[in-house]
Amino acid sequence: MQYRFYNARILTPDGIIHGELRTEGDRITRLSPVSTLDYRDWDREIDLGGDLIVPSFKNAHTHSPMTFLRSRAEDMPLKDWLYKQVFPAEAKLTDEDCYYFTRLAVAEYYSGGTTYCCEMYGHTKAVAQAFADTGFGAYIGSGIFDFDGGYDEITKHAEKLKKEIDALPRVRYALAMHAQYTCGDETLKAVADLSKAFGLSVMTHLSETEDEVASCKEKYGISPVRLLAEKGVFDLGGTGFHCVHVDDEDVRIMKSLNVGAVTCPCSNLKLASGIAPLKKLLDAGLKLGVGTDGAASNNALDMFRETYLATCLQKYSLNDAVAVRAKDVYRAATSGEAFGLAGADGLYEGALADMAVIDIHAPNMQPITDAESNLVYAGGRHNVKMTVSGGRIVYENGELLYGEDYGALLEKCNAAAERIKSEI
Amino acid sequence: MQYRFYNARILTPDGIIHGELRTEGDRITRLSPVSTLDYRDWDREIDLGGDLIVPSFKNAHTHSPMTFLRSRAEDMPLKDWLYKQVFPAEAKLTDEDCYYFTRLAVAEYYSGGTTYCCEMYGHTKAVAQAFADTGFGAYIGSGIFDFDGGYDEITKHAEKLKKEIDALPRVRYALAMHAQYTCGDETLKAVADLSKAFGLSVMTHLSETEDEVASCKEKYGISPVRLLAEKGVFDLGGTGFHCVHVDDEDVRIMKSLNVGAVTCPCSNLKLASGIAPLKKLLDAGLKLGVGTDGAASNNALDMFRETYLATCLQKYSLNDAVAVRAKDVYRAATSGEAFGLAGADGLYEGALADMAVIDIHAPNMQPITDAESNLVYAGGRHNVKMTVSGGRIVYENGELLYGEDYGALLEKCNAAAERIKSEI
Repeated sequence: MQYRFYNARILTPDGIIHGELRTEGDRITRLSPVSTLDYRDWDREIDLGGDLIVPSFKNAHTHSPMTFLRSRAEDMPLKDWLYKQVFPAEAKLTDEDCYYFTRLAVAEYYSGGTTYCCEMYGHTKAVAQAFADTGFGAYIGSGIFDFDGGYDEITKHAEKLKKEIDALPRVRYALAMHAQYTCGDETLKAVADLSKAFGLSVMTHLSETEDEVASCKEKYGISPVRLLAEKGVFDLGGTGFHCVHVDDEDVRIMKSLNVGAVTCPCSNLKLASGIAPLKKLLDAGLKLGVGTDGAASNNALDMFRETYLATCLQKYSLNDAVAVRAKDVYRAATSGEAFGLAGADGLYEGALADMAVIDIHAPNMQPITDAESNLVYAGGRHNVKMTVSGGRIVYENGELLYGEDYGALLEKCNAAAERIKSEI
Repeated sequence: MQYRFYNARILTPDGIIHGELRTEGDRITRLSPVSTLDYRDWDREIDLGGDLIVPSFKNAHTHSPMTFLRSRAEDMPLKDWLYKQVFPAEAKLTDEDCYYFTRLAVAEYYSGGTTYCCEMYGHTKAVAQAFADTGFGAYIGSGIFDFDGGYDEITKHAEKLKKEIDALPRVRYALAMHAQYTCGDETLKAVADLSKAFGLSVMTHLSETEDEVASCKEKYGISPVRLLAEKGVFDLGGTGFHCVHVDDEDVRIMKSLNVGAVTCPCSNLKLASGIAPLKKLLDAGLKLGVGTDGAASNNALDMFRETYLATCLQKYSLNDAVAVRAKDVYRAATSGEAFGLAGADGLYEGALADMAVIDIHAPNMQPITDAESNLVYAGGRHNVKMTVSGGRIVYENGELLYGEDYGALLEKCNAAAERIKSEI
């Protein structure tokens, strides 16, 4: 596809310019304050009427098929929710269920300006296929843990999955282990070895709750971050999801081993896990990402809400209105750096054509002053007029444009949700 | 206007029913699971295709004209923001500015499913006129304080303002004083006397920050709540905005004097004021409301964000996933009870026809399980398909339907914002 967007505001790494932006294939090929005539066969030339092109969100931690559990059982204690609702329901999921519930998640991502995610879930191949079929970008792993079997079984399964996933467009296998507390020594050894064999860093849930850190210290005498570092899991770097309860030593280790941190403020708040120390992570120079976690514990897949909360919770928890700048959190939410995505750290020539168009004329974006900060403090998914994923317009003015039969998708998802409910 | 909505889900006080809802004038006249033929001359008969009718939001604390300061100066210390930006800019506001910036706020309210607010600001007559001209419902007061003059001046001004405002449609004068710390004895006496003269309860900012409470205790030896109670300000009841730092005695006093509490979680978070003890307020049986505060410190006028935060911040701060139920907060955000609105505490025959239609087919509302909880945990203003204010459809599928020339409004607002910026 070749698009020419003109009469646009464009959010560049150096601020907002007025002008035009061109894409060819999956890249931005021109970005200029000057509009020049060009008699090329554009697929579309689009007058944006002054609306704002921004980098799309890169959701750095999610479990997309968990849309099937959205609002399934609210306002109940965590343990009841987990053991009486989540686990029994997950046991009934099929590959086909996961495929369609992931497509439902993609509809939510696209209509909210998100085009990439870092995904961890079972039925991994089916989930990856759903991303591939919708043109959605993903780094995706299964979340290796002890229940997968011994060293050999884990290794073989990972090798097979990597081949299958890497063969698909726009998706890439990620070496993801579930968490320190679900992985014994043999599993950790398998993951550390796979990391070297694949040349991939390791992603994992990390220091999400106080309990998790306390249990690890009781069992091993050291924190989860240090444990995984000592086991060689982070030898090629890594990504930690949540990082709510990391201390100063943890942060030093993460920095020295190039382990990025992903914050999921909505999930951490709703499950009462706490507030991640973003200012400390940013000040230490860690790569930061922002994620939604799964819809079961959120319940939306809304990156606007995450960036807003990430910023404001720091102000609250540090009692400092300047604690973390909106711009820094917005960059973290759109770059994908924390999970290894390259070329998405802003809009510039050569960068990925993963973008959203923001309706700058909406009441909540007016008057136009500091549009970049305002995206974080007042912006919402209703401001997304258009989403471009991998150089293709996939959403525009309320319509999904990638061949989704949305009515049929909802029927499939509701039928599956009903079936699962009846089976447990 | 006479509307018939059919093939609808309807959120009633007893749960969601499927059926039809009729409105005549500003009231709901029929609500039934059975659709019956009727050859009346409906202004419109609308097939909702299964979408969900809910009570509209009633924004219980706001300063609507402050849209003029949205994203004006972000990520700076509170004192610099207040003294170098807010106060100098406010001094340059004209009645005309406030009129148009309030219309801008109304566009944001309507497109997000809000039809009523409890307003406090200067240029009060102009603000009230903007509400009246857009059909928006408001209780509105000036925020009486010492700078308004002595006893006689305050009294005369309030009497005049009350007459002017009560003559307008859909708006009603509210006896609002700014706060304990800006009102000396003479002002408090004037407010207490006006309360009896008008037969109105008193609204005021109340225990918003730790500093405010500490200063009051230092000066008077008692809390702001107790001080105002002892001065007779709450003799006819009242409404406290924010109530972040109220203690058990304060809550008992508020309950016994019928003083409602309004929470503004986004503003309290961004300004690092703290988290109001909602569970305690609800358990004590206080009337609770939810508000956005002004756009200058929020920066959106988005009641979905407020209800989400109000609920989840309790879970976080009490370390209890069951702390406050979504349904209770949603009811607080839609009833307007805390500022004295009657007949808006749900959808039933005879209730106010102030409603919103929610697109239940949007990805974030699917699959359909517990739609009421999901409105709070996943809902957003992008889910609002239609808004009905005082029995009139004022917003539908992205369009404002009350005669607003939106392009001209934006021009006026941006020109005024520029002028004010250049004058300070």
